[in-house]
Amino acid sequence: MSQEKLAELRGRLCEVANVGAAVVLLSWDQETYMPPKAAPGRGQQLATLSAISHQMFTAPELGALLDELGDGRASLEPDDAALVAETRYDYDRAKRLPESFVRRFVEEQSKAYESWVKAREENRFEVFRPQLDVLVGLLKERAELLGYTGSPYNALLEDHERGMTAEELRPLFAGLAERQGALIRRIVESGRRPDTAWADQEWDTQRQWDFTMRVLEDMGFDFEAGRQDRSVHPFTTNLELYDVRVTTRVNPRLLFSAVMSSVHEGGHALYEQGFLERDRHTPLAAAPSLGLHESQSRMWENVIGRSRPFWEHYAGRLRDAFPSQLDGVSVQQLYEAVNRVEPSLIRVEADECTYNLHVILRFEIEVGVIEGRIAVADLPEVWNAKMKEYLGVDVPDDLRGCLQDIHWAHGSMGYFPTYTLGNLYASQIFERILDDLPGLWDDIAAGRFGGLLDWLREHIHRRGRRDLAPAVVRDVTGREPGAEAYLGYLERKYGELYGV
Amino acid sequence: MSQEKLAELRGRLCEVANVGAAVVLLSWDQETYMPPKAAPGRGQQLATLSAISHQMFTAPELGALLDELGDGRASLEPDDAALVAETRYDYDRAKRLPESFVRRFVEEQSKAYESWVKAREENRFEVFRPQLDVLVGLLKERAELLGYTGSPYNALLEDHERGMTAEELRPLFAGLAERQGALIRRIVESGRRPDTAWADQEWDTQRQWDFTMRVLEDMGFDFEAGRQDRSVHPFTTNLELYDVRVTTRVNPRLLFSAVMSSVHEGGHALYEQGFLERDRHTPLAAAPSLGLHESQSRMWENVIGRSRPFWEHYAGRLRDAFPSQLDGVSVQQLYEAVNRVEPSLIRVEADECTYNLHVILRFEIEVGVIEGRIAVADLPEVWNAKMKEYLGVDVPDDLRGCLQDIHWAHGSMGYFPTYTLGNLYASQIFERILDDLPGLWDDIAAGRFGGLLDWLREHIHRRGRRDLAPAVVRDVTGREPGAEAYLGYLERKYGELYGV
Repeated sequence: MSQEKLAELRGRLCEVANVGAAVVLLSWDQETYMPPKAAPGRGQQLATLSAISHQMFTAPELGALLDELGDGRASLEPDDAALVAETRYDYDRAKRLPESFVRRFVEEQSKAYESWVKAREENRFEVFRPQLDVLVGLLKERAELLGYTGSPYNALLEDHERGMTAEELRPLFAGLAERQGALIRRIVESGRRPDTAWADQEWDTQRQWDFTMRVLEDMGFDFEAGRQDRSVHPFTTNLELYDVRVTTRVNPRLLFSAVMSSVHEGGHALYEQGFLERDRHTPLAAAPSLGLHESQSRMWENVIGRSRPFWEHYAGRLRDAFPSQLDGVSVQQLYEAVNRVEPSLIRVEADECTYNLHVILRFEIEVGVIEGRIAVADLPEVWNAKMKEYLGVDVPDDLRGCLQDIHWAHGSMGYFPTYTLGNLYASQIFERILDDLPGLWDDIAAGRFGGLLDWLREHIHRRGRRDLAPAVVRDVTGREPGAEAYLGYLERKYGELYGV
Repeated sequence: MSQEKLAELRGRLCEVANVGAAVVLLSWDQETYMPPKAAPGRGQQLATLSAISHQMFTAPELGALLDELGDGRASLEPDDAALVAETRYDYDRAKRLPESFVRRFVEEQSKAYESWVKAREENRFEVFRPQLDVLVGLLKERAELLGYTGSPYNALLEDHERGMTAEELRPLFAGLAERQGALIRRIVESGRRPDTAWADQEWDTQRQWDFTMRVLEDMGFDFEAGRQDRSVHPFTTNLELYDVRVTTRVNPRLLFSAVMSSVHEGGHALYEQGFLERDRHTPLAAAPSLGLHESQSRMWENVIGRSRPFWEHYAGRLRDAFPSQLDGVSVQQLYEAVNRVEPSLIRVEADECTYNLHVILRFEIEVGVIEGRIAVADLPEVWNAKMKEYLGVDVPDDLRGCLQDIHWAHGSMGYFPTYTLGNLYASQIFERILDDLPGLWDDIAAGRFGGLLDWLREHIHRRGRRDLAPAVVRDVTGREPGAEAYLGYLERKYGELYGV
């Protein structure tokens, strides 16, 4: 009996997933290949498809199925019980959002994205402001519809980092700001700066591209079940388990930008390719939180990709790509250049030491905006003041200030904190990995990533959404998630690099 | 009152069009960028979306709207009356196909496509046969569901060339086969063959690609509202009026393949970009038949793109791309090479003189299969015999025989005849264009296509689906559609080229 019901549930979820795949492809195409005049129509297509998906997922028949399966959960296999419970969670949340709201939200997202692009072209926040005002209104409405305790911001956090609250993040972030701020000051005051004058050249974009493809392949990305393309803002997405797509951007002036971006997105993509076949098309084929997702991308990008052993291996390959330009540049110089610390304006190009500060100021602004303490119109001013306070830099214009990120244009608030949580999870998990794989750094110096990937598959990826992020971290590391591992890692690595 | 109803109709059609756009993008991606392991999932996604689109379009509410608007059609503006009538036509046809059938058909299409790809890899029709048998069964079922008079094949023809019948095509095609056959024999017996030894070189694919992009731009293709990509089989598709996509294929051994393919698809694409803004998202933003659609692609490809004035203009540009390789090659040599006549095995590489014979043999096979007179298992044998009869060539294997086209793998029968009808329509329409634009050849020799495009926009494109194809041809040319203009064009052009 419950086997039939389970099959029916899986069938319905597969149909919803198929519509979801279309939504993903429409979005992917929007940022990779879509011609510009198609933008308004694309917004409508996304709105229609999102509404259909929402309608299918919130169908009363699906609710009835979940009721029946929930009543008999004592007799379900653990996998099936997890499927029912996680679908229930999503179903109850989705039910709180009327279809008209979903449709309106997607339509306004597309408009906001366009006005954000325009505002960037004109380098004027004011062009984006009216549409951001609309989105913030919708986000507040969303929070009320979803419900929350404490700050209304918690309803939005829940979308990205289930169970997390602004109240919990505040002291955590305050601690990070203090110790990272102190580290940055020591570095700046040391007066030491790596010599990166050699990097100030033109780097052929095709060769950069080929290099990123090679690294992705080495990492274990399955190109038979995914691909890489170019976009203005790198991202990872997936239509389904066997169709995972990353993007990167290639800048002829920046040698490390494309490869670090590919390694980052590759970390996300390996996670997406690592879910279980039996979870395909269901809510279980997903990370429990964006923070845990980011732990994968950031472990690959920062812990691995900015390590000395990594560059011991790839220095030779990079030299093969740029023989005359890298003539005489040592492994140590590459390692120092890819870890250069400098308080700067742009989050996505920020180094590891300053990165979290970019996140913290966004978190504070978002909470203020959603709680109604900061007006959208005041964003540039607040932004610039906080940049001065946290990073000591002056923001020359909106493009390099509050217009730099795509997130708000997508109607995403509550997302940024997951980047920092990802950093914390990554370091804590990596300590355990080193315990389990004592030869890991030797492997990496030899370009062998298979042992690491196997470990991640077994301990993180295959779980899908069976446990929440803190439970995964606890289970893997034997400790509560915290900031100690991360701060220790940062202070050791950069203490050594900068002699502070 | 009827204004409200019309707005409601347009709203519903827009929603259906939005789902249709997702279907188109999923299909486009399937043939351009999709990673191979995603194929089975893609088939399911297409099946789900097609079923949803069918369900939305056949909703009883839409039928009721059409009833009410149809009752009051006397008071409708002509545009609105056309919209209601054409939607009614589609609605009634769609209603005859149950959703389960639509879904099954799409699923089997995807499986058939995969087995066709596999059969091509192994060069064995037998690998494809079981799945083609399934599709033919579904096509027969489709014919019965849709209804027909005369041959059941007419139900399938109606999908592609409304109002056309096998009974009407038979004598038309017999006449073509006779006169084209005679022309080919005269050419072969003349012993004259253009010297194309110079073309037997490697042609850099990036330069070929750049050349195709330039020609498309010259033709008037709007790259802000469309794009070109590569695929194994060139095609044109559109998500909507402002998102029209062509593909081409680039072969380093074939200098003319990519550019002729781009010009052909460009002809389709200009048609798609030429519908009226007010018809957007409705059945009126479409060609009345594939034959008329092909008249555009074939006019651009053959009548224009294989003309001497066209190469008078592009010879210089092609020489810029391949200066040393084309050193000493004259305009006349290019013109002769692009019009080389040679009975051969592959339809898509066939010259104008032999092309229709490829179509005619497929038409005869399709009618035989659908009428149950030819068994799927006998296809290779029948194919090879007809190739010998019509073109005098021996088919060495299935790859160069009955496995060459994608159409059957897509479940399309009744489609091929539209290629030949397109040739006929194109020539007949072009006679009228030359009457209206006496300076056209001079324009083309100067690379100016604006006058031609304006003419096509006004007389063909903007009509959308307001008139059936024969009515358009009659209206534009003052004569019934027929084969005379085409045969006259062919005999003049190739008589002169080959002195026969």
